[in-house]
Amino acid sequence: MSGISESTVRRLSHYYRTLEEVEAEGGRTISSRRLAERGGITPAQVRKDLSAFGSFGRRGLGYNVGYLRRELRAILGLDRRWNVAVVGAGRVGTALYSYQGFAQRGFDVVAVFDADPRRIGQRHGTTTIEDVARLAELAPQRRVEIGVVATPPGAAQEVADALVAAGVRGILNFAPRKLTVPAQVALRTVDMAVELESLAFALVHERRARRQRRRPPRRAG
Amino acid sequence: MSGISESTVRRLSHYYRTLEEVEAEGGRTISSRRLAERGGITPAQVRKDLSAFGSFGRRGLGYNVGYLRRELRAILGLDRRWNVAVVGAGRVGTALYSYQGFAQRGFDVVAVFDADPRRIGQRHGTTTIEDVARLAELAPQRRVEIGVVATPPGAAQEVADALVAAGVRGILNFAPRKLTVPAQVALRTVDMAVELESLAFALVHERRARRQRRRPPRRAG
Repeated sequence: MSGISESTVRRLSHYYRTLEEVEAEGGRTISSRRLAERGGITPAQVRKDLSAFGSFGRRGLGYNVGYLRRELRAILGLDRRWNVAVVGAGRVGTALYSYQGFAQRGFDVVAVFDADPRRIGQRHGTTTIEDVARLAELAPQRRVEIGVVATPPGAAQEVADALVAAGVRGILNFAPRKLTVPAQVALRTVDMAVELESLAFALVHERRARRQRRRPPRRAG
Repeated sequence: MSGISESTVRRLSHYYRTLEEVEAEGGRTISSRRLAERGGITPAQVRKDLSAFGSFGRRGLGYNVGYLRRELRAILGLDRRWNVAVVGAGRVGTALYSYQGFAQRGFDVVAVFDADPRRIGQRHGTTTIEDVARLAELAPQRRVEIGVVATPPGAAQEVADALVAAGVRGILNFAPRKLTVPAQVALRTVDMAVELESLAFALVHERRARRQRRRPPRRAG
């Protein structure tokens, strides 16, 4: 990953979204301040992030929206389409493969798998739910590159192993447990509770900060 | 937020999970290397993150698992319970309020709202879906502190405004659009596509790195 952290990539995705919005509104240049808004970060961080990928901005003029968007698109690997398999057609899995935003961003769900005989064979739009036992056969056939694990926690590692064995090189895990994959496989875990915890932290610390602001300033010495 | 970034809080959540696992396995000390595993970050980053909250570790001995877990629990605001309302009982909303992990971590879903008359009044376990028109009345009654927006994008801003007006101070947004909230309200957005993009980035750059490794080294000069 050439030394670029997951948090940096996450911020690049946020910049990309803001650029799309600004472009849709007809904007042609954008400041690092505006780019910083969405991620809740500093303009200095934006400039640092973008400078790591080449010099896109001019001091006092800001960034060219169209040019920067196209550059980020290529950097993020969004100038091509990706074949995705979703394993687990429960609530989370169904929410995922029904999500229109994926296709818009270049992610095509080409297969959905489940182990439950009542679900296998069901059609949702253009997708038929396949037996997870056929994963080893169908994933290479449909050129699956990214696998989404949306199974109960107990099945998640087994499914991840099957995806890796079928040649999948990127896994997005929604099951609330830690998965182990070989070093050459990219793994991201989405834990809904982490997001709530981040809010809890903000609420606790905002409250503390407000209490402190209310206190009279202490005298030095 | 006392200068602590969202990414830092996210990493603290990951450390907390690893500590829970290690404690459950009976481990009593843990190295920064082991703590770094889960987030895919460096041991130096772990030491830096934890030192910002006080000195918990001893060189060569690692961190005391129980002590560090309790400290992080308090820092993250998990040493108390939080009342959560979910707005939108579609696929994402249902997946969320059915998720056992929330209650385990101190988040109690005390209300679920929807605008669809076919959904209003339905019971799921202990939760009855309420008319979103009653949000202003029910949210303060049930002491809702965190609101989850899981509506279609077109309704999301209106719902966020209603939550803020009802005194909610933290919002977790799953709708694929940008929300505007007052500065004193904490906002987190979960965009599934951002996670897939982060994988796409890893796959593209891993491939490039492999190609470069395969090239014969250039001679200097």
